[in-house]
Amino acid sequence: MKLYSYWRSTSTWRVRIALAWKGLPHEVVPVHLLDGGGQQHGDAFRAINASAQVPVLVLDERGPDGAPRRLSQSMAILEYLEERHPAPPLLPADAWLRARARQLAQICVSGIQPLHNLTTIDRVKELGGDEGAWVRHFIERGLASLERTAAETAATFLVGDAPSFADVCLVPQLYAARRYSVDVAPFPTLARIEATCAALPAFRAAHADAQPDAPAR
Amino acid sequence: MKLYSYWRSTSTWRVRIALAWKGLPHEVVPVHLLDGGGQQHGDAFRAINASAQVPVLVLDERGPDGAPRRLSQSMAILEYLEERHPAPPLLPADAWLRARARQLAQICVSGIQPLHNLTTIDRVKELGGDEGAWVRHFIERGLASLERTAAETAATFLVGDAPSFADVCLVPQLYAARRYSVDVAPFPTLARIEATCAALPAFRAAHADAQPDAPAR
Repeated sequence: MKLYSYWRSTSTWRVRIALAWKGLPHEVVPVHLLDGGGQQHGDAFRAINASAQVPVLVLDERGPDGAPRRLSQSMAILEYLEERHPAPPLLPADAWLRARARQLAQICVSGIQPLHNLTTIDRVKELGGDEGAWVRHFIERGLASLERTAAETAATFLVGDAPSFADVCLVPQLYAARRYSVDVAPFPTLARIEATCAALPAFRAAHADAQPDAPAR
Repeated sequence: MKLYSYWRSTSTWRVRIALAWKGLPHEVVPVHLLDGGGQQHGDAFRAINASAQVPVLVLDERGPDGAPRRLSQSMAILEYLEERHPAPPLLPADAWLRARARQLAQICVSGIQPLHNLTTIDRVKELGGDEGAWVRHFIERGLASLERTAAETAATFLVGDAPSFADVCLVPQLYAARRYSVDVAPFPTLARIEATCAALPAFRAAHADAQPDAPAR
């Protein structure tokens, strides 16, 4: 498999964690989202993903035309990987807990991240808005919901004692929060679980700073 | 089951289609998102959903404390209903096509809708932005991606010849598009499939105008 990736992309990071957790070998193809206005907007990349976004996962299966199949949208990719490579899992066995893992994940995926991605920020700046204030508002609001909702199922991880889609989404979301100087002290459950995840090899391998296109420190 | 709903909420509408498609009886509890600043912000509703959003589905199963379990986030609810009530399905049997249905759904769920929900629009207005121009930008951009991406799998519906999560998300999204005067002529595949869906009883029952809290015409 081949993953079109940008080191600091929250959505791509989720997929990197899942690939590492399941031990699935893949090549990383960096796409620079800022250089020259963003490589994702070029015709070459738009032919790969009409949405002009990372991640795109090129699969190890081919369509009737012989071309490798490819998927975008991080949650669709996570669900696909879970169905095709169920062990080790990233969803609990119980239907109710699976649903809660997806609910917590979606608080990040649809409730927070779309409000701070590049295309949104560009429009906010065009309106003369302050990028930091806008992003902090939505991240703080979303993390407050996540903290309160997580309390119902959290143990070692957000849902019970094994990592799930929820933790996969939490970790890059908290990185984005810190990048925008959000104080995470009001979210002690989230911060504790983030620290637990940070010690796991799959989460370390997927970290933004461990990527081939991360800038040298 | 019990569904906390608002007639014109895009996210709730998705769940209404799934419940109707699967023939699952449920009570609808209207939550007015505008009256008095929005009932969703009151303490009573926040105790039900810390994210202060519809939909919330109260399930026909109870937790260890005896209280009925409840779920929010439309995609988490759709996946739960699909796992618990697989027939009639809203996902194809093939793993690849399932993934594509989820990918197309997420273009609406995380790529379009969060940019035009009430809390986002409120912030845009605070910046002095024009609500219509903001919303049209993101809907037109998202529908263009959806039209191009759908071309790879579309037949009678967005993915093959049966409705899926993708169509469940498409129909309310196109309603929102028209509400903001988006011209849907550049999206002929989407418009054709919307018309096909509109003839199905489950989609008719779930329509905004068929809801108990829809204003009289």
